[in-house]
Amino acid sequence: MKAAPARHLLAAVAAGALALIAAVAQAADALPSWNHGKAKQSIVGFVKRVTAKGGNDFVPPAERIAVFDNDGTLWAEQPVYFQLAFALDRVKALAPQHPEWKGKEPFASLLKGDVKSALAGGEKALAEIVMETHAGMTTAEFEIIVRDWLATAKHPKTGRPYNSMVYQPMVELLRYLRANGFKTYIVSGGGVEFMRPWVEKAYGIPPEQVVGSTIKTKFEMRDGMPVIMRLAEVDFIDDKEGKPVAINKFIGRRPILAFGNSDGDLQMLQWTAAGGGARFMGLVHHTDAAREWAYDRNSHVGRLDKALDEAQAKGWTVVDMKNDWKIIFPFEKR
Amino acid sequence: MKAAPARHLLAAVAAGALALIAAVAQAADALPSWNHGKAKQSIVGFVKRVTAKGGNDFVPPAERIAVFDNDGTLWAEQPVYFQLAFALDRVKALAPQHPEWKGKEPFASLLKGDVKSALAGGEKALAEIVMETHAGMTTAEFEIIVRDWLATAKHPKTGRPYNSMVYQPMVELLRYLRANGFKTYIVSGGGVEFMRPWVEKAYGIPPEQVVGSTIKTKFEMRDGMPVIMRLAEVDFIDDKEGKPVAINKFIGRRPILAFGNSDGDLQMLQWTAAGGGARFMGLVHHTDAAREWAYDRNSHVGRLDKALDEAQAKGWTVVDMKNDWKIIFPFEKR
Repeated sequence: MKAAPARHLLAAVAAGALALIAAVAQAADALPSWNHGKAKQSIVGFVKRVTAKGGNDFVPPAERIAVFDNDGTLWAEQPVYFQLAFALDRVKALAPQHPEWKGKEPFASLLKGDVKSALAGGEKALAEIVMETHAGMTTAEFEIIVRDWLATAKHPKTGRPYNSMVYQPMVELLRYLRANGFKTYIVSGGGVEFMRPWVEKAYGIPPEQVVGSTIKTKFEMRDGMPVIMRLAEVDFIDDKEGKPVAINKFIGRRPILAFGNSDGDLQMLQWTAAGGGARFMGLVHHTDAAREWAYDRNSHVGRLDKALDEAQAKGWTVVDMKNDWKIIFPFEKR
Repeated sequence: MKAAPARHLLAAVAAGALALIAAVAQAADALPSWNHGKAKQSIVGFVKRVTAKGGNDFVPPAERIAVFDNDGTLWAEQPVYFQLAFALDRVKALAPQHPEWKGKEPFASLLKGDVKSALAGGEKALAEIVMETHAGMTTAEFEIIVRDWLATAKHPKTGRPYNSMVYQPMVELLRYLRANGFKTYIVSGGGVEFMRPWVEKAYGIPPEQVVGSTIKTKFEMRDGMPVIMRLAEVDFIDDKEGKPVAINKFIGRRPILAFGNSDGDLQMLQWTAAGGGARFMGLVHHTDAAREWAYDRNSHVGRLDKALDEAQAKGWTVVDMKNDWKIIFPFEKR
């Protein structure tokens, strides 16, 4: 009469242990490209806390908003932002229709292959390049231009399509968050309509969850059919102080998780950190010169300086690409 | 040996018939405040077509985007837009802090209760009222102001809180669409941050699915804590041509269903209609002077003229409030 309850107890304990092992294994499997370490632990620990029903840190699914920078956080950004590579390729493609560019900077330098001289004109030169290549067509036409470029352009270092250079560990993280009831958003300095054509396939993020920089657009009738024209005028730059502004405007809820990689993401991380309850702030630190690039405080692209100091001071999670990630890009998988 | 299969066949037919009756009843039940008629038929027929797997008109859930105007489409808008009523109440509440208003239009007239004279100054007067009452505080402070107003203000005709004056049949429609895999959005000329505090409870529409007019905002640090300040400057007016522009910017997919009630919604309906595949364009026609208001072509609020002509010419669905709706407001329910 005594043995039976003990056996039942043992069976119950064993079942509980198995369930625990299964849960841990499942969580570990959701991030197979992450090495076991502090970064992975902090992510998994946070997700467990905010999803534990009845726990102190529980967050209802509707409030599980996660925001991610794109350039340098979800895909690579070297040797230049990929959208700039797109713009430069467009200048070359459009040159035959613009004979005047041969005598006009920044286009003259660009067409001679001298990117450095072209960009010596600073923001004004960059704005001219962007407007000539991103405006003056309908939104539907621009989408086709982006798709065609992604289908043909190759990255100078890897020789692969730009949209294959997404970070596999971050793709897994996005999927893991969504499996745990999070809504995943991009909040990027890049152009919204440059991202939307490919991010759903690459990251599982739908168009309505892409926040970014915009140029002005205009609704008009063309032969009785409505179109939206892209105008050569900046509407909004989604960078630095612009990121929390855009999060408030487009999402209207404060995120509980934010991931960036540069000083341009600092204000978004601060805004996320300032909310009540459990919070996760993460930075991707580019530390792998062999498999990707190594850069931070002195980089012209994706400078990470003040945000790194603040992350260290406040205990935010800093992902060390070299040591935390088993692979960087999906194409490394065998 | 013959009787048994026949019985089986009969049972199968009966089961099929019962399933069919149940399905029809369920669909009907999803819109209990709608009378049986053309409008209800066109809605249910459209939803059945786009959700029928394998059917010619099937639309994958991710693309089932539905957009709704708010004022006059989801809640009432008479005798003045409710956000204007809010602004006028704010002027009264703020008057003690602004002794100079007694000698300054449009405030002087407003404080005397003479709304007509105050608004005689046209858009400029309106902009001054909006900026004085909607800007100069943080987004968090503004949210509290809106919530407090809704908790205390009463509509002059019904004596009820403004947010109880939502249209019960439209609330049912929103719920019915979501149950069928649609994502429901507000695309309103009203202010985004005036709507977000109450629309989730009223309509089941979360903050991130509210598109509307905005004023500029600014991220700043206040005693080491980040805040977003509301500035006295217009950012975007989400009306007429602005609606498809905002749909493209915020959602990035063309809706397959759009509902409005005024000429300010025409371009949104045109943009929706111009997509491929099955489409639904609807207008709420205010025809019920007894239970709500009756107005269209000559109204100063929610004028419905060109859009009514286009709806009739193109066979869009026009909801006749008087005949199509069993009840208007939730408080009519016994």
